[in-house]
Amino acid sequence: MDKRISIVTLGVKNLAASRRFYVEGLGWKPAFEDKEIIFFQTGGMVFALFLRDKLAEDFQADPATFGRAAMALAYNVRSKNEVDPLMRLAEAAGATVLKSAREASWGGYSGYFADPDGFAWEVAWNPDWSLSADGSIHLPTK
Amino acid sequence: MDKRISIVTLGVKNLAASRRFYVEGLGWKPAFEDKEIIFFQTGGMVFALFLRDKLAEDFQADPATFGRAAMALAYNVRSKNEVDPLMRLAEAAGATVLKSAREASWGGYSGYFADPDGFAWEVAWNPDWSLSADGSIHLPTK
Repeated sequence: MDKRISIVTLGVKNLAASRRFYVEGLGWKPAFEDKEIIFFQTGGMVFALFLRDKLAEDFQADPATFGRAAMALAYNVRSKNEVDPLMRLAEAAGATVLKSAREASWGGYSGYFADPDGFAWEVAWNPDWSLSADGSIHLPTK
Repeated sequence: MDKRISIVTLGVKNLAASRRFYVEGLGWKPAFEDKEIIFFQTGGMVFALFLRDKLAEDFQADPATFGRAAMALAYNVRSKNEVDPLMRLAEAAGATVLKSAREASWGGYSGYFADPDGFAWEVAWNPDWSLSADGSIHLPTK
């Protein structure tokens, strides 16, 4: 099995509210959308917002068992001074700030916000990780 | 804000068990690991397994509030006949099958398994989506 993730799908309660946040607020252009799902092309993968009852049905879960996800997504940037404006942009779009941006123990600078469904997003600058022109991120090789 | 996800981090209860599943079971080679976190380079992004108490601390959450994630990751393949062997590989590695692979309403073929922490992974073949040689996936453009 290769190392890859093709799609990250978040189960959302209200697709219109998620659309307002990601499309209108953050400015992400959908590649496809209907009444149940929105797909975004994010680099070499796909990010999806899907009605959570439909997602639950898809993997045969009871949506009543869903809770706060022990999961975080991160958006890494090229320079430290990009972090604060992005935290403000997310907040203006309706995000809840989980942790204001600050110096991190690992040598970078980062903050966290929660999207309308509470999914945690980190906005991070890591001086040891490089971003390509296309936004892809690369871990240092040993 | 560009459209991108730099890192997907799953909060896990037992890093050794997660390692057995992803590294030994699925054969994913870590780029970095210590006692708290394992990083994998997955195409142009990073996939991380992080002790869930540490992840909770990082975004100032109470880990007691964590529940089943309304979220799914997907691993897309190039041909329908790759799906069943991958479901069996995951099961042999200790995954729980959430939904056995079957024809999907959207024209493809897919199944779902849960990793040791219950995170849902779909193994999917979608005849309308193309995969590049490097494994990146591309939505049809309108």
